Amino acid sequence: MSVPHLVTAQSGPILDLERKILAAQPEIEHWFRNQWQEQTPPFYGSVDLRNAGFKLAPVDMNLFPGGFNNLNRDFHPLAVQAAMSALEDFCPSARRLLLIPENHTRNNFYLQNVAALVRILRQAGVAVRLGTLNPEITEPSALELPDGQKLLLEPLIRQGNRLGVAGFDPCVILLNNDLSGGVPAMLSDLEQTILPPLRAGWSTRRKTGHFAAYDHVAETFAGLVGIDPWVINPYFDHVDGLDFHQRDGEDRLAASVDAMLGRIRRKYAEHGIDHTPFVIVKANAGTYGMGVMSVKSADEVIGLNRKQRNKMSVIKEGLEVHDVIVQEGVPTFEHIDDAVAEPVVYMLDRFVIGGFYRVHTGRGPEENLNAPGMHFVPLAFATPCSTPDCDAAPDSEPNRFYAYGVVARLALLAAAHELVPATQEVALAV
Amino acid sequence: MSVPHLVTAQSGPILDLERKILAAQPEIEHWFRNQWQEQTPPFYGSVDLRNAGFKLAPVDMNLFPGGFNNLNRDFHPLAVQAAMSALEDFCPSARRLLLIPENHTRNNFYLQNVAALVRILRQAGVAVRLGTLNPEITEPSALELPDGQKLLLEPLIRQGNRLGVAGFDPCVILLNNDLSGGVPAMLSDLEQTILPPLRAGWSTRRKTGHFAAYDHVAETFAGLVGIDPWVINPYFDHVDGLDFHQRDGEDRLAASVDAMLGRIRRKYAEHGIDHTPFVIVKANAGTYGMGVMSVKSADEVIGLNRKQRNKMSVIKEGLEVHDVIVQEGVPTFEHIDDAVAEPVVYMLDRFVIGGFYRVHTGRGPEENLNAPGMHFVPLAFATPCSTPDCDAAPDSEPNRFYAYGVVARLALLAAAHELVPATQEVALAV
Repeated sequence: MSVPHLVTAQSGPILDLERKILAAQPEIEHWFRNQWQEQTPPFYGSVDLRNAGFKLAPVDMNLFPGGFNNLNRDFHPLAVQAAMSALEDFCPSARRLLLIPENHTRNNFYLQNVAALVRILRQAGVAVRLGTLNPEITEPSALELPDGQKLLLEPLIRQGNRLGVAGFDPCVILLNNDLSGGVPAMLSDLEQTILPPLRAGWSTRRKTGHFAAYDHVAETFAGLVGIDPWVINPYFDHVDGLDFHQRDGEDRLAASVDAMLGRIRRKYAEHGIDHTPFVIVKANAGTYGMGVMSVKSADEVIGLNRKQRNKMSVIKEGLEVHDVIVQEGVPTFEHIDDAVAEPVVYMLDRFVIGGFYRVHTGRGPEENLNAPGMHFVPLAFATPCSTPDCDAAPDSEPNRFYAYGVVARLALLAAAHELVPATQEVALAV
Repeated sequence: MSVPHLVTAQSGPILDLERKILAAQPEIEHWFRNQWQEQTPPFYGSVDLRNAGFKLAPVDMNLFPGGFNNLNRDFHPLAVQAAMSALEDFCPSARRLLLIPENHTRNNFYLQNVAALVRILRQAGVAVRLGTLNPEITEPSALELPDGQKLLLEPLIRQGNRLGVAGFDPCVILLNNDLSGGVPAMLSDLEQTILPPLRAGWSTRRKTGHFAAYDHVAETFAGLVGIDPWVINPYFDHVDGLDFHQRDGEDRLAASVDAMLGRIRRKYAEHGIDHTPFVIVKANAGTYGMGVMSVKSADEVIGLNRKQRNKMSVIKEGLEVHDVIVQEGVPTFEHIDDAVAEPVVYMLDRFVIGGFYRVHTGRGPEENLNAPGMHFVPLAFATPCSTPDCDAAPDSEPNRFYAYGVVARLALLAAAHELVPATQEVALAV
């Protein structure tokens, strides 16, 4: 498979970070091995990274990844092997898995993701059926995808505390539905294992919870490798009690943005970075790039016009946004020709199984590339993230991808901490 | 990577076997998952398979595999991921691994294997050094391979009950040396973990022990899939107390060969197979294809001439052979043009990571292809063994390779049983 050459940051501190990551590779893997003895990774996840040249950091962690179809087909066996490992870890005695996808039945990109995921799981050795929460699907419905693949969506059937589809009583239920609309009664109090757990859904999960966990992980890791944790960690703040329509809390949001811009400016000065700071304001729950703003001044969040307020106030499933994360903006320096590119790394169990670039010609290096209706070009990574070449330059492709895999796994580790029920949370051990 | 088309058996019962294996794929993977909850796989292993068209069976299981360099480079990341898993399972807290290779320093094929193995282990995240038992290596010696790779062989240093090389105190010791010559004092009573355990070496291990364990595994598996266990299992018998030079035990060997030919003949009749039975007589300990005979009649082991007796009586390191396995010969129906081909499947931990064909133009379908000084052409498998395609024909390439991977894992499971110390052996549970 041939992949266009990716232009990445050519110089500056990122090389230093990558050099340090490469030099510490056995220590890093040893550290991860020990972390995974203590922590249970999520079943799967994807991480949006931003590579600014001077900084390489996760900006989002998705526990219901929706782009398995975008991964390099050459690395499909890696996904199968990782899924075998995940099945052994989570449900060794499982024979039958029920996959619950998102409700959209007309988004072919998403359905291709479901088909790719089903293929991985079947090859890993479980019988898989698709059960849908979509109330419009009242009988088994075959969907044909543009590439000829077929999916059979079946209505869920609940009997007592067991969930299944007709003639199929699963041992385990895998969610590829982020529960933005809340946890349906159908899924409550089931005796079957649900992966990831219901608390991973956006009805309870908060981005600020993830990045609070990531703070600890990044700090420990930075100590291990000998770097400033800021180089792998974006600042964030939490503002809640907002009402964009009523303009309630605008002043508090502006104050948070202003403080954040000041913190970034000081870090830029400290590291000698010549760049204008910016801040991302995002709904604290939810995905799909809805409810996102990129601002360079606190003024920009004051007196939003109706259109801007509408955009910010509603995310998926019509939910109102009252709660945001104010996150340090990390510009992306990666581009292909004139298009901006953002890496997304995919993981199954504790293994990186590949990734792709979101490439967007219509957007700038400081914008959110995961936008509603965006027409991104998925560009699969040419090498997996697990094969660093210590003899090559730190910024050679396998090594850059190794660094991406390491930072993505840090976010995965943060998610593992985040998903531990509060009563069981243990201190992060080095 | 392009791979020539392999001509395999086109029809007959093997299709039936492969069809049954494919149909039972989720059940098979579920069964393996449960087996690996009970049994610890060897750190690594390779299995020689024979595909006769009517039969697909392991004929040898190597616990010190020596052909990592022959695997398809495209699947290298699979090996790294499996090694990460192996390190987690066997020595999660290990940072430093000492690899002890065979003593040959001039066999470039073998040294390339060592280089490939070192690369896999390093990328999986351990520091690796090479310590040699070779008494001729008294100081660190750099060896340059034809492809430019370099290996540093270092003399072993023992301090108390710890083994290492200068300035390197390993947490774990990995043997790629089959200990044919016995367990050196240097390796006895070490406090470090040795992988695989010393009892896996040919100074104690016996092929008959392996195939006795395989009998149980094959029978259980055959029950699961609904096949005659013979289809995946070669008959074997054990003859010891031999002295080829003195011609002691010749008659007992001939009787065993004769009985074996009779059993094969009856099975061929039962399955309607039109083929002349043959039997392989092999040293019960050791590898490298030394001490091997292929015979079609008991007469052939009576009155061996001096050359034949010499060939049979001595294997690696000049050890005398007094103990043989008499194994049902499984012809290979696979060939590439006019050359005979035999699949070898490689595993790390419980994962199949690839394989290759031993291709030999100078030998027939009933001969041993792993012969001393043989010039085989390693032909890497074009697809991994983990991605069956249930929509394709049972004899399509990914499916044939899946069946190979399944049968190889059965041999791996037998090795796991074989390596359990006698006092801990537990009954094989379904």
